[in-house]
Amino acid sequence: MVAGLEQIKILATAKQVPERVVSNDELSGLMETSDEWIYPRTGIHNRHVVTDENTSDLATGVAKKLLDEAGWSADELDFIIVSTMSPDGLSPHTAAIVQGNIHAANAFAFDLNAACSGFVYGLSAASAFLASGRYKKGMFIGAEVLSKLVDWKDRTVSVLFGDGAGGVLLEKTDEPVGLIAEELQSYGEMGDAILTGRFANKNAFAGEISPLDPYFHQDGRAVYGFATREVPKVMNKALEKAGLTADDVDFYIAHQANHRIIESMAKNFGQSMDKFPTNMEEYGNTSAASPAILLDEMVKAGQIKPGMKVAFVGFGGGLAIGVQIWQL
Amino acid sequence: MVAGLEQIKILATAKQVPERVVSNDELSGLMETSDEWIYPRTGIHNRHVVTDENTSDLATGVAKKLLDEAGWSADELDFIIVSTMSPDGLSPHTAAIVQGNIHAANAFAFDLNAACSGFVYGLSAASAFLASGRYKKGMFIGAEVLSKLVDWKDRTVSVLFGDGAGGVLLEKTDEPVGLIAEELQSYGEMGDAILTGRFANKNAFAGEISPLDPYFHQDGRAVYGFATREVPKVMNKALEKAGLTADDVDFYIAHQANHRIIESMAKNFGQSMDKFPTNMEEYGNTSAASPAILLDEMVKAGQIKPGMKVAFVGFGGGLAIGVQIWQL
Repeated sequence: MVAGLEQIKILATAKQVPERVVSNDELSGLMETSDEWIYPRTGIHNRHVVTDENTSDLATGVAKKLLDEAGWSADELDFIIVSTMSPDGLSPHTAAIVQGNIHAANAFAFDLNAACSGFVYGLSAASAFLASGRYKKGMFIGAEVLSKLVDWKDRTVSVLFGDGAGGVLLEKTDEPVGLIAEELQSYGEMGDAILTGRFANKNAFAGEISPLDPYFHQDGRAVYGFATREVPKVMNKALEKAGLTADDVDFYIAHQANHRIIESMAKNFGQSMDKFPTNMEEYGNTSAASPAILLDEMVKAGQIKPGMKVAFVGFGGGLAIGVQIWQL
Repeated sequence: MVAGLEQIKILATAKQVPERVVSNDELSGLMETSDEWIYPRTGIHNRHVVTDENTSDLATGVAKKLLDEAGWSADELDFIIVSTMSPDGLSPHTAAIVQGNIHAANAFAFDLNAACSGFVYGLSAASAFLASGRYKKGMFIGAEVLSKLVDWKDRTVSVLFGDGAGGVLLEKTDEPVGLIAEELQSYGEMGDAILTGRFANKNAFAGEISPLDPYFHQDGRAVYGFATREVPKVMNKALEKAGLTADDVDFYIAHQANHRIIESMAKNFGQSMDKFPTNMEEYGNTSAASPAILLDEMVKAGQIKPGMKVAFVGFGGGLAIGVQIWQL
């Protein structure tokens, strides 16, 4: 036992994104927009969009790659948690579809929704199951098909989002690695700033209580202010719990919502943008999948290595924020 | 520390159901059905249905009652987990709305979806957060407005479901009470047996990949066979982990899907139906809420008391099963 550390190893990382790439230039043929408008405001050039896949397909792709990379068989898994705000449906839940697809015969599975903080909240839940001592091996995936929740006639939000999935395999370990500290906080009073996926609330006895409205509605200004103001507070609490300073963290893997939000964070902590990598240029905002996709790219590029300290930073719908600091 | 026990106290229970009661007789005015048909097959006479509330409203009612009963202020809460397969929407998540409504200023919040096993899976996640040592006080709620996911012209499923919410407050404790053992298992290969809440999967580049279909479709025969065959296996594994026999459990608080399924379970374990209480007579199947509503009613009636051993049994969409055995 290492004091203050939940000893858990991130054994493998993987990502799966749709092949179809939609550039800002292509979007400008669909609506009144342009790369010159989108890129400076968001940092986004492209996003990947599904053509025949749903959320569980992307997540299943990630699951298979994770097992391959670790050399695990599916029946070694104790659980599969999928964070998503764009599930295939409400039943079966997306994690159960993945569990069936990979024949994880000894696993339980559930979906978790904390919107764009879903990666951090899901990793938190997954590591809590391991820290409890009940389980030894878990799979955690963030997966989104946000293109189905976007009104492609609404240029204020449709340019922001993309589809994709990423995940990790987690294992209890005796090595001195794992979760150092976390700070999670919700802000439900501000929930209306990001609305999406609202089923109609109606029945035969009351008629329509509220209408079907699947599409994203976002108060971009409110969300920008929220993220730049509140994320540093939560980060400071997480660093304090960890007994670390901002300088001690090698990389900040932040939710890829907007380049300007991430620049503001880096500046706030006196850190170089080298420590706040981004890939929203290529994928847009993929919500719960975004830190997972970025993590896998950084690991595969050899930039994130064992021995490093990494902070995962989620913020968005709920509203909600989450920070986890890991010793890799 | 008590060996083999995650020391957690269930400090308070509460429920909130809509006032509007819809009887089988009233349904027979809407569709070709009758109490004589429904009751012998399901054990259901009535269900409660919302007239102006959504899922977060029922969950907020539960949250306020829980705090009142325990004498806690909302800012003592470390987290709020809501299990639901019928959230208000995909953002904000229902737990965040509850967190905002009760001003739980220090809590994080997320939704969990494991369909009708949502009570057991959510209680599992909530207790794992406490067992991890990260947190001390948590709120867990199961909340459903299934009436919005029911095609009220489909007599095969609309008679089965109801709306409601229930929950518990959980606290880390030094007392010899808490979670003795759990066994959770998913069966994703059988996921198509219970379908609901499927958003359309479409975008501007691929058109419609799959259509909007919010309504329940259920293969009742397959689900009945699954539950009566598989739940006893999972229960046996949980009892074995706990080092208990079926006789040692004082009450089995099972998901209230169908009276005949619960009769089959009791018979399978050689237990009297007195140990398998039911309330689907009044509420129908309320999915993740159903064991929570029943637990609260049993506690308030003085039937479930400190010192007892209780098994929570969930089964349904996913497909999924979960059993937790608690020392109260």
